[in-house]
Formats: sequence, C-alpha cells, structure tokens
Amino acid sequence: MIESTNNSHIKNIIKLMKNGKERRKQKLYPVEGPKMVLEALKLGLVNEIYISERALEGLNYEKDSANNRYAGFSCDEVLKILRENGYETVSDKVFKELSDTVTPQGMIALADIRDTSVKDVIYSQYGVKHFCDDICCMSVSRILILEDIQDPGNLGTMLRTAEAAGFNGVIINKGTVDPYNPKAVRSSMGAVLRLPFSYGEDICDIIEECRNCGITVYGTHLQGNDIRKTEYKPCSAFVIGNESKGMSERAKALCDYTIRIPMNPVSESLNAGIAAGIIMYHSSLKFL
Amino acid sequence: MIESTNNSHIKNIIKLMKNGKERRKQKLYPVEGPKMVLEALKLGLVNEIYISERALEGLNYEKDSANNRYAGFSCDEVLKILRENGYETVSDKVFKELSDTVTPQGMIALADIRDTSVKDVIYSQYGVKHFCDDICCMSVSRILILEDIQDPGNLGTMLRTAEAAGFNGVIINKGTVDPYNPKAVRSSMGAVLRLPFSYGEDICDIIEECRNCGITVYGTHLQGNDIRKTEYKPCSAFVIGNESKGMSERAKALCDYTIRIPMNPVSESLNAGIAAGIIMYHSSLKFL
Repeated sequence: MIESTNNSHIKNIIKLMKNGKERRKQKLYPVEGPKMVLEALKLGLVNEIYISERALEGLNYEKDSANNRYAGFSCDEVLKILRENGYETVSDKVFKELSDTVTPQGMIALADIRDTSVKDVIYSQYGVKHFCDDICCMSVSRILILEDIQDPGNLGTMLRTAEAAGFNGVIINKGTVDPYNPKAVRSSMGAVLRLPFSYGEDICDIIEECRNCGITVYGTHLQGNDIRKTEYKPCSAFVIGNESKGMSERAKALCDYTIRIPMNPVSESLNAGIAAGIIMYHSSLKFL
Repeated sequence: MIESTNNSHIKNIIKLMKNGKERRKQKLYPVEGPKMVLEALKLGLVNEIYISERALEGLNYEKDSANNRYAGFSCDEVLKILRENGYETVSDKVFKELSDTVTPQGMIALADIRDTSVKDVIYSQYGVKHFCDDICCMSVSRILILEDIQDPGNLGTMLRTAEAAGFNGVIINKGTVDPYNPKAVRSSMGAVLRLPFSYGEDICDIIEECRNCGITVYGTHLQGNDIRKTEYKPCSAFVIGNESKGMSERAKALCDYTIRIPMNPVSESLNAGIAAGIIMYHSSLKFL
C-alpha cells in the first residue's frame, strides 16, 4: 500500500492532474471514479489503477451483494476486473491529495491520450456508426469545431452533447482549454474516452482542412442566418467561438455560412454550451 | 465611506449573499457588477447601491472618455445614474468581503424579489410579447417547470435560455435551489431580473395548476416519446427533473405526455441545462 505523497507514482498523478503540458508529454491523463475507470478499462485505454483503502474495503465488504452500483458491475465483478488488470492500494489520506473532487470516489486510473488527426475525426463515422444501421447513413457526417473555449466544464459538456447528438467528433484549436483537464474529463461523462477528437494549430487551418474534405462549415454569429431558414448539408461542421467574444473574424470569413439561433431581443446571448447543444441537435434531428 | 465589515449594511449584504431564508424574509437579493446593477435600476428593482473605492475612482478617471463599456453606458452616464439613485462607497478591503466572485467588479445592489404567482407566470405573455408583433401570437404560451434542480449554475443557465427561447416564465418546486443564490443570479445573465418566475410548494400542484389553465404539460423521460415525433401544442409546459435522478414518478404520472431527446446509445444522458435548452428551442422554433 502506498502511504506517502512522496511516492513517485503519487507525485506523477498529482502532476498529471494539474499540468496540461505534462499530460501531453506523457500522453496520459487521470480519470476518476469507478464509472470512468471501468469504461476506460473496457476501451483498453488504462495504464495504472489506484484504489483507496476505504474503497477496496467497501468492495470486499459488499462483494456478495447483488447491488450493481459500479457502472452496472457488482462488487465481485469489479474486484475480479481489478485483479485481472492489476492495481495499487493507496491510503485514504494520500488518496485525498490525489483527487480533484470534494468527495473522492476512491478510484483513479491513468488513461491513454490517443493520437487522432483532424482527418481521422472527419472520416471517423463515429456518430452515424452508433446511430444508423442503414448503409445510406454513411454519407452523413457531423463535426463540432471549437475556437478558444475557456471553461473546462463547458468543453466537457460540449463533448458529452456532441456524442449524444451523433456527431463524428470534435476538433479544437490551440486556444481552447485542455480536454484532458480533470474538470473537462468529469463533465464529459465519459465522452472524452470515446468520442474522436483532435487538435489543430490554427482555427483557420482546421476550417480549411474540413472544407477541402467536402465538409460544409457553418460559423455561429449573432448576425448570421436564422437557423429556422438554414438547410444543413449532410456533411457539416459547426464552429462555436469563445464564451464572451464569440468566433474570431478571420475564422468567420472562412466559413461557408454563418448561422444564428433566434432569441428574444432582450437576451444578449446564450451560454456557449447551450448554443452548441441547440445547433448540434437542430442540425442532426432530421438526419438521425 | 464604509470601512468596516461591522457596518450593519455590510453585515446584511453578506447575510443575503449566503442565506436563502434571509433573502426570502427580506424579499431582497444582491446583484453584482455594473451590467446587472444598471439593468436592475432600469427595471426599478434596486434598493441600495454599493460601489468600491477603486471602481468609483475608475469611473471618475474615465468620465470624459467615450468608452461605453458599462452595459452601453459611458462612465459619465453611470456616475449620473449613481448620483440620481444614491449610493454608498465601500473601501476596497471591505468590498472584497462582499463579493461572491474572484475578481469583484466593484458594484453591488440589493434588488427586490417580486411576488409572482404560478398563475402570473402562466398568463404572463412575457416571451411572446417580446417576440411577436402579431396579435395571433397571443395564443402561444411556453412555460418551463423545474423539479429538484440542485446546481445553481444550471438553474441560472436555464433561466437565461428560457428567456432567449421566448418562454413566458419558469415555475420551480420547493426542492429546487434558490434562483436568488449569487451563482444562479450570475449565470442567468440578467434573466433573473426580467423573466417571470414563481415557486410552487409541490411539483404535482404546479403541474395540475398548469393543466387546469389549459396548458399541455410535457414531462421529460428517457422512456418518453421521441421529440422528432412530438407535436407541441401552442400552450405547453415542459418539466425538467433533477440532474441525476430525473423527474419523479409521481410528477411524470400527472403529465399529458412524456418526451425524450434521441441520443447515441453509448450516451447515458445529457446535462439537465442542455436538455432543457434543446427541448425549449425544439418546441419554440416553429412558433417563434
């Protein structure tokens, strides 16, 4: 059992929690809680697993119960999975230092950051593959492009919504917050593990690469075309801009169209995550 | 100038920041930042205004500049408004204790909590009044009902979206977090000042009162009818349930219909604020 915060593994997890550069360098990020850890294991993305003393006791204590409260697994099954994959026990005191949450759930794993290119996202077919049995759906593709999103909770929520709306994946520019930030990971509710996404250096390069691949790119802007009058092409990408400033002018100029969500004139704007959700579903509902 | 946190006004603001019961008793809540304070003044809802030493200095320093950065007002206009309405200056040190934010914007006002009944919300015509010139729109009404929403940021965002989507107003049950909580006020971006909303003791009473007024009530549920196959009535209310548990069975049983947002099967759920946004816009876009 690890009982000191001086342990090199513990020090590394803390570093990976706090430091985006370190996450990119090691190509690893921490995921917390039994649900996320078990999902990451299922996807074959887990390197190291750490479990708190108390969480392990709880699993052993309840192992004969039929309660499937760990992401659909019983305690007995979770213990079996842990034994098969190997884990380290961590004292409760040290575990508290590791966790990013107020009420730690006693399980942390280091998951792999996958190498996904912008083209991988464009051709991923992730969303339609899950949604449609029909081969004709293969000609539909939906991509979310993010420019300078600053709030990790917003980013995580957008990943979660993009996955639910049957999107292929997400492409983020360099100015957007790190999707492997613990808060973004948490609010993505597992989408960060599954949904293909990639980075592009510059927002303009991202938009041009999409257009070169035959994707119609829709920017969002308060002066854009009303979404009620918008015909979405089967292969579309949608750009959501910074929470307070919106999309940059240079990115907007490269889009095929700009669109807007109609609003009560007394409202100045919508939350960026909400706007993304409304546009993703509005454009998808006829194709899903 | 107020220079002590022992000042009775300061003590009262801190109390109103922290304590929902106190807000309901005094029928007052704090609003922060020039934008919110000026909006509350415009609506005639402000009682007391407090400004930090530094913010006042800034206004005086820039008063001849043409920079309209205070919610469209120039510094000179803001100073005039402040003088007309009366204000108290607060030392920067004391002001820091007052503010709920990390970077206080130097202006706080106490705003009135209005008395609005469930029927006031139902018949408010708030949304359509702002959206439509046409008299025929008067037969359209849209209401959001919230059951046990726990996150104040989520609640504030839902108020903001409801206003933008042209809703009449919002009715919340007793188990929902206080909309006058500073975090909810902030994330509502001013909607809390304008959008009619009221409390109902019990969620079932709220639903029944709406139905008795001729409003069709739609519950949201993972087993409901796909929104793509839903015909919305011109007078509709939508119930959004608790972030993790969703709607209660007893509330669901009272709804005219239950609806669901289609999702990629790998997704378990959407964020409650996102789900509310998608449903509010999906149901409104044909009527707006």
